[in-house]
Amino acid sequence: VICLLLLHPSTGNALVESLQSCPATNPSMLNVHLVPHTHDDVGWLKTVDQYYYGDRNNIQHAGVQYILDSVIDQLQKDPARRFIYVETAFFYRWWKQQNQSTQRIVTQLVNEGRLEFINGGWCMSDEATTHYSAVIDQMTLGLRFLNDTFGECGRPRVAWHIDPFGHAREHASIFAQMGYDGFFFGRLDYQDKARRMKTKEMEMLWRASESLTPPLADLFTGVLPNGYNPPEGFCWDQSCNDAPIRDDPDLEDYNVDEIVQKFLNAGFYKANHIIMTMGSDFQYENANLWYKNMDKLIKYVNALQAKGSKVNVLYSTPSCYLQELNLANLTWPLKTDDFFPYADDAHDFWTGYFTSRPALKLYERLSNSRLQTCNQLEVLGGPKSKSGPFGEGDSDTMSKAMGVAQHHDAVSGTEKQHVAYDYARRLATGWAHCEVLVRNSLAILSGSEAPRVFCENLNISVCPLTESSHKFSMNVYNPLGRTVSWPVRLPVNGSVYSVTDANGRAVDSQVGNVFISLKCTCYIYDMKSSCLLPLLSVRWFHCLSPHRNINNKSVTFDETTGLLSSLTNLETNQTIQLTQNFYWYNASAGNNKESPQTSGAYIFRPNSSDPFVINKTAETQIVTVSSTVQEVTQWFSPWVSQVVRLYEGHRELELEWTVGPVPVADGLGKEVITRLDTDIKSSDYFYTDSNGREVLERRKDYRPTWELKQTEPVAGNYYPINSRAYIKDDKHQLTVVTDRSQGASSLYNGSLEIMLHRRLLYDDYRGVGEPLSEPGDFSDGLVARGRLLLTFTPPDTAADVHRPLAQGMVLQPLLSFQDGTPSANTKLEFSGLQTDLPPAVHLLTLSQWDEDTVLIRLEHQYQAKESKTHSQPVTVNLQKLFSTLDVLGASEMSLGANQWKEDMDRLQWNAGNNYPSPWEVTLNPMEIRTFLLRVRQL
Amino acid sequence: VICLLLLHPSTGNALVESLQSCPATNPSMLNVHLVPHTHDDVGWLKTVDQYYYGDRNNIQHAGVQYILDSVIDQLQKDPARRFIYVETAFFYRWWKQQNQSTQRIVTQLVNEGRLEFINGGWCMSDEATTHYSAVIDQMTLGLRFLNDTFGECGRPRVAWHIDPFGHAREHASIFAQMGYDGFFFGRLDYQDKARRMKTKEMEMLWRASESLTPPLADLFTGVLPNGYNPPEGFCWDQSCNDAPIRDDPDLEDYNVDEIVQKFLNAGFYKANHIIMTMGSDFQYENANLWYKNMDKLIKYVNALQAKGSKVNVLYSTPSCYLQELNLANLTWPLKTDDFFPYADDAHDFWTGYFTSRPALKLYERLSNSRLQTCNQLEVLGGPKSKSGPFGEGDSDTMSKAMGVAQHHDAVSGTEKQHVAYDYARRLATGWAHCEVLVRNSLAILSGSEAPRVFCENLNISVCPLTESSHKFSMNVYNPLGRTVSWPVRLPVNGSVYSVTDANGRAVDSQVGNVFISLKCTCYIYDMKSSCLLPLLSVRWFHCLSPHRNINNKSVTFDETTGLLSSLTNLETNQTIQLTQNFYWYNASAGNNKESPQTSGAYIFRPNSSDPFVINKTAETQIVTVSSTVQEVTQWFSPWVSQVVRLYEGHRELELEWTVGPVPVADGLGKEVITRLDTDIKSSDYFYTDSNGREVLERRKDYRPTWELKQTEPVAGNYYPINSRAYIKDDKHQLTVVTDRSQGASSLYNGSLEIMLHRRLLYDDYRGVGEPLSEPGDFSDGLVARGRLLLTFTPPDTAADVHRPLAQGMVLQPLLSFQDGTPSANTKLEFSGLQTDLPPAVHLLTLSQWDEDTVLIRLEHQYQAKESKTHSQPVTVNLQKLFSTLDVLGASEMSLGANQWKEDMDRLQWNAGNNYPSPWEVTLNPMEIRTFLLRVRQL
Repeated sequence: VICLLLLHPSTGNALVESLQSCPATNPSMLNVHLVPHTHDDVGWLKTVDQYYYGDRNNIQHAGVQYILDSVIDQLQKDPARRFIYVETAFFYRWWKQQNQSTQRIVTQLVNEGRLEFINGGWCMSDEATTHYSAVIDQMTLGLRFLNDTFGECGRPRVAWHIDPFGHAREHASIFAQMGYDGFFFGRLDYQDKARRMKTKEMEMLWRASESLTPPLADLFTGVLPNGYNPPEGFCWDQSCNDAPIRDDPDLEDYNVDEIVQKFLNAGFYKANHIIMTMGSDFQYENANLWYKNMDKLIKYVNALQAKGSKVNVLYSTPSCYLQELNLANLTWPLKTDDFFPYADDAHDFWTGYFTSRPALKLYERLSNSRLQTCNQLEVLGGPKSKSGPFGEGDSDTMSKAMGVAQHHDAVSGTEKQHVAYDYARRLATGWAHCEVLVRNSLAILSGSEAPRVFCENLNISVCPLTESSHKFSMNVYNPLGRTVSWPVRLPVNGSVYSVTDANGRAVDSQVGNVFISLKCTCYIYDMKSSCLLPLLSVRWFHCLSPHRNINNKSVTFDETTGLLSSLTNLETNQTIQLTQNFYWYNASAGNNKESPQTSGAYIFRPNSSDPFVINKTAETQIVTVSSTVQEVTQWFSPWVSQVVRLYEGHRELELEWTVGPVPVADGLGKEVITRLDTDIKSSDYFYTDSNGREVLERRKDYRPTWELKQTEPVAGNYYPINSRAYIKDDKHQLTVVTDRSQGASSLYNGSLEIMLHRRLLYDDYRGVGEPLSEPGDFSDGLVARGRLLLTFTPPDTAADVHRPLAQGMVLQPLLSFQDGTPSANTKLEFSGLQTDLPPAVHLLTLSQWDEDTVLIRLEHQYQAKESKTHSQPVTVNLQKLFSTLDVLGASEMSLGANQWKEDMDRLQWNAGNNYPSPWEVTLNPMEIRTFLLRVRQL
Repeated sequence: VICLLLLHPSTGNALVESLQSCPATNPSMLNVHLVPHTHDDVGWLKTVDQYYYGDRNNIQHAGVQYILDSVIDQLQKDPARRFIYVETAFFYRWWKQQNQSTQRIVTQLVNEGRLEFINGGWCMSDEATTHYSAVIDQMTLGLRFLNDTFGECGRPRVAWHIDPFGHAREHASIFAQMGYDGFFFGRLDYQDKARRMKTKEMEMLWRASESLTPPLADLFTGVLPNGYNPPEGFCWDQSCNDAPIRDDPDLEDYNVDEIVQKFLNAGFYKANHIIMTMGSDFQYENANLWYKNMDKLIKYVNALQAKGSKVNVLYSTPSCYLQELNLANLTWPLKTDDFFPYADDAHDFWTGYFTSRPALKLYERLSNSRLQTCNQLEVLGGPKSKSGPFGEGDSDTMSKAMGVAQHHDAVSGTEKQHVAYDYARRLATGWAHCEVLVRNSLAILSGSEAPRVFCENLNISVCPLTESSHKFSMNVYNPLGRTVSWPVRLPVNGSVYSVTDANGRAVDSQVGNVFISLKCTCYIYDMKSSCLLPLLSVRWFHCLSPHRNINNKSVTFDETTGLLSSLTNLETNQTIQLTQNFYWYNASAGNNKESPQTSGAYIFRPNSSDPFVINKTAETQIVTVSSTVQEVTQWFSPWVSQVVRLYEGHRELELEWTVGPVPVADGLGKEVITRLDTDIKSSDYFYTDSNGREVLERRKDYRPTWELKQTEPVAGNYYPINSRAYIKDDKHQLTVVTDRSQGASSLYNGSLEIMLHRRLLYDDYRGVGEPLSEPGDFSDGLVARGRLLLTFTPPDTAADVHRPLAQGMVLQPLLSFQDGTPSANTKLEFSGLQTDLPPAVHLLTLSQWDEDTVLIRLEHQYQAKESKTHSQPVTVNLQKLFSTLDVLGASEMSLGANQWKEDMDRLQWNAGNNYPSPWEVTLNPMEIRTFLLRVRQL
């Protein structure tokens, strides 16, 4: 491999050639590629920085600083030795602490291919509970560091998700679009694996999009033979107890012959090449142990070639192994679905983590919205946004916090409690840095440096400023690329407020009793705001006594049970029967005859397929807040309640659920779901999104690529949803848009269930070592609150509603408040975009790249064929996009922004693709295009 | 320190100078000497080779090969870094496997003082259960390797016994005579330590001999402040969980200030210098962890000097620390007793291991005898002894096996069972190598290459050759420097044998019933043999019917109890009342209110101070085997019996005890003793030897240097005996000479008790993790058999008897057998010495050094003043010593033979000493002198 140093996007450095070579193999032998690697979780049992430093080794012995120290030392001892490194969040920390001499050595090792970066994102993201927006960001963050530091030789060629617990098709699509040549992972359903082993389908071509034209989203994908561990008996890390190679005949227990024989018997694939992952979690802290013994293994196994052995062992990397497979020019099986759910045994379905830690999952999602807002305002506000009237701010801290939060033991909810707190703390710190930037930027854009506060606790109706001030103004920043209508609810103390918009026009608002407390809550509607338009609005609130009757045109309640009973779409004049209620599955305590598996942070295993209903009836309280919002509060138990809301002019029905603290005094762990039962004839089919983008069809007790033997009728039918799930028949589609990642299923015809919260009493033996029982701030268990948005349409127009609805859920307006009235010269309205983007186009990324360049990602947010109106190519003019930026040039990049698109030269497993000219950008369904814009502030 | 490369004894290399420098200190500050070190047990929970390779890490994580790899790597990274290495048994293995390039690097590090050898023996010997002969040998073995490999810069200056469980005065004496400048250890009685901390007597001058003229046996001795561990919170090894120094303010938990403050508060000594042991058991396998954090500690602590701090931290070594103390020119307290017994808490006396594994302890002692024989015959037989008619033989294997057997978890009996087996296996392998050498040598000396067998199992009356042959000859090799009389007992099948000596004279012999089986056992007496004289004797045995009456002139039995009742010395015509019986202490099971401490491999803790008697009476069987031996068999229980023997012409009463399998089916651990109760008015005093040489006075419930608070009235009064113990009053002294190391005490006036065997049911929480319950070959518990030799004399002539008796017990004749009659030209007698050595002189060492040189150690075996006859200077002429060697030159060496005596330049803590001329060697009481002789075979 000749690696070309990438023309540095920011500095325009000249091309520099350097030689990365792969080790020689022997075509007449079985080549065993030993891949020395470490798997370094960016937080799990310890926090990311505890892992970095090797702190709290009483919890788990792991210190990444020492791993990198040690590997670099050992690589220098023999040019044949190789190592791959994966997690840039760690490598970045380490690199910063090295002196120039070490940095030079490392650069040389990278240039020679002896140290190779694989995957290279900030973390190895979770695939079930992450949103594609944050995944692309975290990959970009890591890849950029590698590109800036090492240039082309630092560009990872292979994606490497050896640990995540199931694999999302959207991830494969993202990796393909980022220019990866291949993808390896370790975990897949045990039945699937057994079948693939048998049919030699452990390696395949994954066609990861139904919308993108092949090979745009095609990715060569390999399942590693031993998970990501070494073959049994060959683990020579300090953390292992396998016998070292004892090759001194003078000492006792000389075992060279025995070890060599064991290796030769290890049962390889029948191909000419086999990859062996030589490493595992946090291994290579003392790399000498590994290399010393592997040196001996290679020496003694290859020495047998002189006696006719046909086995050739060598140090290698996934890229070099992949290159050999590519040269073999074989035909690979095609894969079009995904690898969910993951089970490692009959009663061990890793479907619990789809929902574990619902509050962290929401906070991560909100943080993404905040980061996008922060990034956008950094661009729009210009350089002073980072250093302005409110001090020094930055978006980097939040980027990095979001980067680690994507890790497969972070947003997944499978970390220890103290680590979950650390992720949340990092996000909060990130936002604190962003707040300064946002304050500066808004000051610049509005021309007003008046103090500005953000109310973080509006979800529990707390905002000291609005609660104490008799006169305040609110600023709304909308990070979406188009105008949206957004309801706002604020806690206030007064009972009469007058609310006006930026133009002094009265805004419809209501003051009513709050269901949680006696505070007044005010709703403001119809605050239209355009994309990137910080609508500075001053509104005076006034309270009215709440209406006690309800006049709901699209939803009915059963008078006896208090439950929802039907849903009507007034536009299409269609109605379905809809009952919704809350249930809990009794989590297995491990005392079951068939298997001792418990429910835990990872695993969902109900004791019975029949959940317990929380209450067959709900006590309801009907509140008409205003003519534009109607709500019904339902009380199911002291720990389960719900507010049902309909907004004027909105198509969705909002279900705001509150669950917790989940009682466990009865000794029973509980997995709480809500279930929607309809008369939609969905049969066994339902649909779930992949990382918030494309939707996959699911079928109960069925897998598209193998004959499933279903052993867990509930847990084995759960799938992750990141943004939505739906059921449908010919006429009706009921779509649920969620505010965070959750687990969902459809176990009955017309039914859709979503798991909302889990509180468990036992660890599930996958390492975390704690039962998932989150403490609450004020109670013994965590209270979670969230929203499900229900849309009910004919199937062929469903996407027109749920696509923008879901994007609006992801990128929420940012509210900020100032006491009193804005000063006279304050600019009350601003839009960063010249005009709304076309309905099919989503502004996925807008962030400052360096002084003169801005990274932008435009996305076609509709799948092929899902919308008659929108599933069409759409064109955007990059030059005419911004109101305040002069776009001087545009260069299209790979999705990860670490390569010019024109330089993308992925290994050819299939035909190539053309790319159009720069200014007029056409997006096909589900396409994301990434540009680096050279800009100048107007 | 300028280190001069030692003039190489074997090659006569020229002197080469090299610079070993100590780090600079700051005289106006408190200098904290950080001493990076690892403590590598030469076997304990794993075997020595398992420790070396890092095998069986499931038992204990430890791999010495990696430790040395890693330390050498890390030392190269910064010239300020230092390391000490202690155990040559490991270093030797590692060195052999290194390539020239690494060897050169290591030599350079040694020459610069960055890697310093400390202690440097083959192992860190146990001090309670070792014999000085084997200790000197194992030290010599290690020191020679260092000297041969690194010359003067490899010569350890400091003795370092950081782990042994109590400290013998004889060890200090040996270290002084080996030229060590100082001695550091970690463990001493907790009361003693508390007192010394208070009175600032943690460092002292140990006057380690009552016989040798000061400062010959004076040794500067320091007690390390933290055992051998780092101060609390500063353990940065991979095996520790202390917080690393986290000095990146960008990462969470920045803790530099906290760590620095903690260090400054760590409560140092008030001197200007303090030593801190930075390391522990098998640490530094990944040395980077240690050094990286110590680098930071030094950097940040010393950075405070700019702000007025008076603390200066530096990498150092014990030698450099010692040098600073020496320069301080202070007066140190004098210590003349020893550091036994060791207790680490009120009920935690480490006095059990004095007896633990009695069979291993005997086997180690027999192996020493065999090794000395092997060494001597290598010298006497010349080069062909190593490669002769019987193949390739060597003494090195046995030397090394004995070297590791001296380790403080080897002969001490405190290793795991599988490791005890490994030590025994090594000794057996060593002897197998020696056997070939001995066969070759005896063939050369006798002129007969007829096959020769050794009967290893004579202790259980098994010898296939003598049991099947009707005509055989026996060869006796006496390794002592003087003629001895030695009883021989052989199993035979016939009933009538004729026994003759080398000159064809009839030898008195008897065939009688054996007490163990019905085999015939023959006794042969009066086989006089001179030192180094392999007396080839052919004897014909004949059996007589055994006498059933006894006519014992010096011992009486109580007719009612069957126990001994009195002892008479017919020469001095003195008699004492003497009752002897067997008892067992009930081992504490840890369920005691005062402390949960159990009895275990280390700890002796009886449940009660009153032992249970095995039986108040013994069944006796009186056997007069011949006129020259009389014996009585006593049966106390199915598992305790004894044979009482008196030999004609011998002054001692032999008690051959057999104990085991100790029954534990009653759930009670048992510690079996024999107790001699006499009317000697010994009051609270008794006497025990130190490593088989000088004798120390003991006093019940008393320590010479501090006011003892006795908390364990039995265990707290136990002391190790290696060769003898005695009680006395003005007129009578009863001395017991043992065949192995044991624990002993005198708890009553006139009483002396010796612990013989232990079988326990609980681990004692000192790491070994196993109860001491040795399996037997043919039964569920180990049977131990041994001998106690009792001498009864006036005190002022006691040494004249017990000194030669004890040396005869240590160096036993080696018997070998040939079938049939020797051929006519066989030389039947040979003596390597021209004449018997003077009675006061013991030939401690005679071994081949290299082709032309022989190492000899001559020892004055009497203490000053203990014998009117023998406690006088005595002179030996080295040139006229040997019958078959022409001694061309003699150079006197330090005791460790790694330095010319004239070059010995120990740090002056006191006045110096003169050494006389070479040929006429005068020995003062308890002096050992060591010479390298240039010889030529005559």
